[in-house]
Amino acid sequence: MAESPRTTVTVLGLGAMGQALAAALVRGGYRTTVWNRSPGKDTELVAAGAKSAATADEAVAAGDLVVACLFDHQSVHDVLDPIADQLAGRSLVNLTSTEPKGARELAEWARQHGIDYLDGGIMATPPMIGQPGSSILYSGSQRVFDEHREVWESLGSAEYFGTDAGTASVVDFALLAGMYTMFAGFYHGAAMVRTVGISGADFGKRAADWFSAMTASLPVAGAQIDTGDYTTVFQSLDFTKAALDAIVSASRHAGVDLDIVGPLKNLVDRQVADGYGTESTERMFESLNPPPLQRT
Amino acid sequence: MAESPRTTVTVLGLGAMGQALAAALVRGGYRTTVWNRSPGKDTELVAAGAKSAATADEAVAAGDLVVACLFDHQSVHDVLDPIADQLAGRSLVNLTSTEPKGARELAEWARQHGIDYLDGGIMATPPMIGQPGSSILYSGSQRVFDEHREVWESLGSAEYFGTDAGTASVVDFALLAGMYTMFAGFYHGAAMVRTVGISGADFGKRAADWFSAMTASLPVAGAQIDTGDYTTVFQSLDFTKAALDAIVSASRHAGVDLDIVGPLKNLVDRQVADGYGTESTERMFESLNPPPLQRT
Repeated sequence: MAESPRTTVTVLGLGAMGQALAAALVRGGYRTTVWNRSPGKDTELVAAGAKSAATADEAVAAGDLVVACLFDHQSVHDVLDPIADQLAGRSLVNLTSTEPKGARELAEWARQHGIDYLDGGIMATPPMIGQPGSSILYSGSQRVFDEHREVWESLGSAEYFGTDAGTASVVDFALLAGMYTMFAGFYHGAAMVRTVGISGADFGKRAADWFSAMTASLPVAGAQIDTGDYTTVFQSLDFTKAALDAIVSASRHAGVDLDIVGPLKNLVDRQVADGYGTESTERMFESLNPPPLQRT
Repeated sequence: MAESPRTTVTVLGLGAMGQALAAALVRGGYRTTVWNRSPGKDTELVAAGAKSAATADEAVAAGDLVVACLFDHQSVHDVLDPIADQLAGRSLVNLTSTEPKGARELAEWARQHGIDYLDGGIMATPPMIGQPGSSILYSGSQRVFDEHREVWESLGSAEYFGTDAGTASVVDFALLAGMYTMFAGFYHGAAMVRTVGISGADFGKRAADWFSAMTASLPVAGAQIDTGDYTTVFQSLDFTKAALDAIVSASRHAGVDLDIVGPLKNLVDRQVADGYGTESTERMFESLNPPPLQRT
């Protein structure tokens, strides 16, 4: 990427993700200033060309665009509250993992201090930043998003979800919730196959292939839950209930706890108990008490 | 695939999966006889070249290799017990979804009746049968597996897991447990994003991409659980606990029930409470009370 002398960037927070973001910005040709609360995290970055700041205030003074990537919502306030005056008139993007209500609260805090606030949710691990497959979701200030689009694209694919600063966080957390749930399902299966001498490494390869193939059904399932019409296309709740009963029984037989598959079975059982057994398995969604679909 | 005059195949059970299996066998050039308890399921198959049998006994008499794909374990006994004498000396492959203990029980039943028994777990939906991506796991009689390898390969990729008839079922159910859990995680996320006007169809596409990308970590996670050494490589349990606390809070805020993410958080919380917060997130596996790894 070409040198962009107009944009100077400051990165606050040099955990694994903050370091990865700063490294990608340096690689992208941006004049990058970095700061971390505890020292010693910036050695490699400085060697690569970043400038190290002794205080957050000094770091912010060096950047038109301030990227915060801190431990949690509280630490964002701990770091930014004392330097709100220095931030006034600048663009702030918060890539700290922040709840929707926290993102909205920070957007309001920023507005009161004359700071232009954009919230971001990172859908990538640190090694992926700036590489194919890295994706960051943004919402909040459209001006900040549009003006620094080239910066965002140096970090990964960039998508803007509108002016509500909380939206990117909702989508981020929804995808993470699914990911962690998938991991728990993997661990459950890995515990089961131990009883027949199959290693976690072996099962991991099989599960990666199988889960990837099965994700193809998610857009179809998603379209069905949008309609609220649960006419069975392929697999009925009765069929899925039989499968989950067998999975629970086989898990118990293998001595694996039912912490994950028990609640999963409950989602299906509740729909069957309500008389929907011949309807589509996708109806288990309704067991989660989803809010009505808001069309924007 | 070339005509194989030596192998005649009988398919018992013409649900969606049985029909798909029979259709693939007909396409593969096998002389295929089909039977279903209730009539009218064989019309398309007969048009394609299959022979219809009026009774299970008559169907079995026409095939060297008998494929059972019935509703459940009980229905396998309901259909096969009365015709055990006709099955004697033949090869039986049971592709009905059957628990490991059921598969082992059927293998013993078959042995007592002079039937050579192979159990199979289908990792595919009916439309995938005979197509790329279809995979069937087998265990039980090695002779049946080896002798009819060409038949198995006409249905999908075929893998043999050894003489214990229950092994294929354990692997099958472990992969299905993971898949259904992943689906539940998807539905949870889909319920969350409704609050910001994102449809299930839209979220389905995002989740398919994200989950697929994240499956790349499963072989690595699997290798770590094999070692029992949970030194943090990337993400500590403390970090994951903070993320799950935020996901639970955001879910509650969105009005989505915690049936799925609550138990998931418990897996992590239990390890943190036991003092392992600085160890790797993969340690959540130990919360499921996994059996010790049996090396074969």
